[in-house]
Amino acid sequence: MPNRPVLDFWYEFASPYSCLSALRIEKLAEEADVALRWRPFLLGPIFAAQGWNSSPFAIYPNKGRYMWRDTARRGRRLGIEMLKPENFPQNSLAAARLALAGREEGWTPAFSRAVFRAQFCEGRNIADEVVLGAALKQAGGEPGAAIPLSRSEEVKGRLRAEIEYARSIGIFGAPFFVTGDGEPFWGDDRLEEALGWARDGR
Amino acid sequence: MPNRPVLDFWYEFASPYSCLSALRIEKLAEEADVALRWRPFLLGPIFAAQGWNSSPFAIYPNKGRYMWRDTARRGRRLGIEMLKPENFPQNSLAAARLALAGREEGWTPAFSRAVFRAQFCEGRNIADEVVLGAALKQAGGEPGAAIPLSRSEEVKGRLRAEIEYARSIGIFGAPFFVTGDGEPFWGDDRLEEALGWARDGR
Repeated sequence: MPNRPVLDFWYEFASPYSCLSALRIEKLAEEADVALRWRPFLLGPIFAAQGWNSSPFAIYPNKGRYMWRDTARRGRRLGIEMLKPENFPQNSLAAARLALAGREEGWTPAFSRAVFRAQFCEGRNIADEVVLGAALKQAGGEPGAAIPLSRSEEVKGRLRAEIEYARSIGIFGAPFFVTGDGEPFWGDDRLEEALGWARDGR
Repeated sequence: MPNRPVLDFWYEFASPYSCLSALRIEKLAEEADVALRWRPFLLGPIFAAQGWNSSPFAIYPNKGRYMWRDTARRGRRLGIEMLKPENFPQNSLAAARLALAGREEGWTPAFSRAVFRAQFCEGRNIADEVVLGAALKQAGGEPGAAIPLSRSEEVKGRLRAEIEYARSIGIFGAPFFVTGDGEPFWGDDRLEEALGWARDGR
């Protein structure tokens, strides 16, 4: 399919709203005939640069309480049972590196969905290698090869470069969508608008 | 119309997303057969309590740049030309007190829309009494009576009580919608969902 418009989907594994987008984006992108680029990154360094040492949902309790209510409500409409994992926000470094290690073999999207489900539907800890290995297998990856690759300098550098690029184009939260002509959309609630813009150029 | 469901519409005059909601809520509420309570308040004291001395759109430049782009984009879809006033965020104290002074005479909604338009469509400063007087006249209020009333202890106390109540139910941003059964919705992009919940109870 030549000339299919492209949408960059930037997501952070520790972000509940990124989870909602990850679990519904594929079908919507197909309907809009838009090609997706799954771009996992970390918000930690970007938040740190603006003086936050954690997620705003942890720093501001009212915002956090509201977010869990809102994501549960939105999840129910989509048929997704969202829950608050005991441990929040989770350390998403290993998951993000693994997701980037899957780029060549193509299991990044399926792996990412499995990681989000493990964390926000089953309450598992995604810093745990057992959890990540199970997600990898679900996605058709080979833990014995993928986990060492995810720890290579090559993949570590890939993640650093993605974070640096995200920062350079002004990304400050997740999920974040960027169309081929550079139009930015922040938040799961802008997903439909972003796909429409990618398709129609406005 | 007995038993019409009610939706509380909490808004801050300095908030661009509150402007978008104020300019479109009336028609949507009519269609949903929901009665609105217009509840102007101030975010300043609520932000101060969580350590912010200004709007997050002023404190975090990337977030601010994105917000102006997003509100302009959403405004265009609604036929509203939004602009960034030279002075942002503006001091909304006098506007909020005036809006609360109009409760008995019923011009609060029309006055509020006029104030939002003056600020975010014409770039005027809503701390300016001339601007407020013009909005009052547009809304059918009497500046000679309303302005002194807005400075009375009665109306000042009314605003303090509204802010205190908003804080007590966990409101942390604007616009904010609360249904009769206490379901909270934050942001202009939740307006349709809030009206649906008010109407259907879910």
